[in-house]
Amino acid sequence: MSPSNPVLSHHISSQFNEDLQDVHTKFMTMGGLVEQQVANAIHALLDTDENLAIDVQFKDNVVNQYERDIDEGLTLILARRHPAAIDLRMVIAMSKANTDLERIGDEASKIARIAQNLCEEGESPRGYMETRHIGNQVRVMIHDALDAFARLDVDQALKVVMADVDIDREYQSATRTLMTYMIEDPRHIARVINVMWVLRSLERIGDHARNISEQVIYMAKGMDVRHTSIEEIEQKVNQK
Amino acid sequence: MSPSNPVLSHHISSQFNEDLQDVHTKFMTMGGLVEQQVANAIHALLDTDENLAIDVQFKDNVVNQYERDIDEGLTLILARRHPAAIDLRMVIAMSKANTDLERIGDEASKIARIAQNLCEEGESPRGYMETRHIGNQVRVMIHDALDAFARLDVDQALKVVMADVDIDREYQSATRTLMTYMIEDPRHIARVINVMWVLRSLERIGDHARNISEQVIYMAKGMDVRHTSIEEIEQKVNQK
Repeated sequence: MSPSNPVLSHHISSQFNEDLQDVHTKFMTMGGLVEQQVANAIHALLDTDENLAIDVQFKDNVVNQYERDIDEGLTLILARRHPAAIDLRMVIAMSKANTDLERIGDEASKIARIAQNLCEEGESPRGYMETRHIGNQVRVMIHDALDAFARLDVDQALKVVMADVDIDREYQSATRTLMTYMIEDPRHIARVINVMWVLRSLERIGDHARNISEQVIYMAKGMDVRHTSIEEIEQKVNQK
Repeated sequence: MSPSNPVLSHHISSQFNEDLQDVHTKFMTMGGLVEQQVANAIHALLDTDENLAIDVQFKDNVVNQYERDIDEGLTLILARRHPAAIDLRMVIAMSKANTDLERIGDEASKIARIAQNLCEEGESPRGYMETRHIGNQVRVMIHDALDAFARLDVDQALKVVMADVDIDREYQSATRTLMTYMIEDPRHIARVINVMWVLRSLERIGDHARNISEQVIYMAKGMDVRHTSIEEIEQKVNQK
């Protein structure tokens, strides 16, 4: 399944290996699904595809079910197998990242709901260029974070953390632009505010991708790098 | 410490008990701090108290440090003590709720940053009545969720979950009110949008309080009630 992941191939107990593999596979599947949900939500918004917007909201149930299944799997591993060292870290990291994946699914669903409303009103509002741009970046971040998770790749995880800093800056700038649109033409306030909520969701998705990447560093290096500046993270990672 | 909490008094191993007590105490202390952060952030906003707004942002570091300490304590318990049954559920629930507490701290910090900006500009914008009202409700929710956690009180946890439904409804209504303010007087768009972000943060805090309460139900009953309607939760809880 994940031949390059060192955690998933070193166990003597084949039953433990199977259990962990099983949850890991579910986690990666959920990740792929969530990535698709975000892509579809943005697509539905920008191309005013109402059916797709409805589909994204509907599929949020599937994401939620994955979250429950994964947590249940992890709890069983803890109860039966008493993992230690890097195995324990993988279980903990997956439990945290699982929450982040579900939240990304939530944000995709919120974007899809707004897309559905905007579809009904027709005509695309201003701010779509910014949405497309930030949306694309955020999708890459989710993909890279999951890839880093699958391969326990600290360098890739670091890249995602850095990308989140860009996103935050671009989100600020896009918000300012939207504010001027509203002041210029107050008739479109309600519509532009909807685009603002979308940007906010995208910014949050970036945060969650960053969180997942921080869990990759925890898993691989045993270091808790949450609430730490990029310079500090780089320094810490290179020390070990 | 928590004489009424059945999980914290039944252990034969006194070392295990001490470890779990220790993390539990930290968790409750963090909870109290976070509750205060939210109260102070709202206070700073409504009474244009800039110093308090700065203090809230500054103290976010303390909240973050608690999050790290608690997770470290929980990991050590998992590695050394191999908790089972309700003990394991308490460790897992505390790990999840820990994340929620930290996010509540984040939202308080965001509110405080906005409060600081608004202080500098002087003059209180419209929408403060809504903020005060929802702010008070959300504070009660955090308090009740933590209280339910400390006493493993499922009924109280259920009450918090129900309160979250009210918050969501009032948030929607307040957002609509703010929208009309902006359309009526576009000169205040920037300021009213800031109040909108505050309301959004409060609504998110309500979600986190609900999440913590769901973990209380998981801890006490072993049931995962996330993504479940209130009717279903009540039914499930009463079945057991």
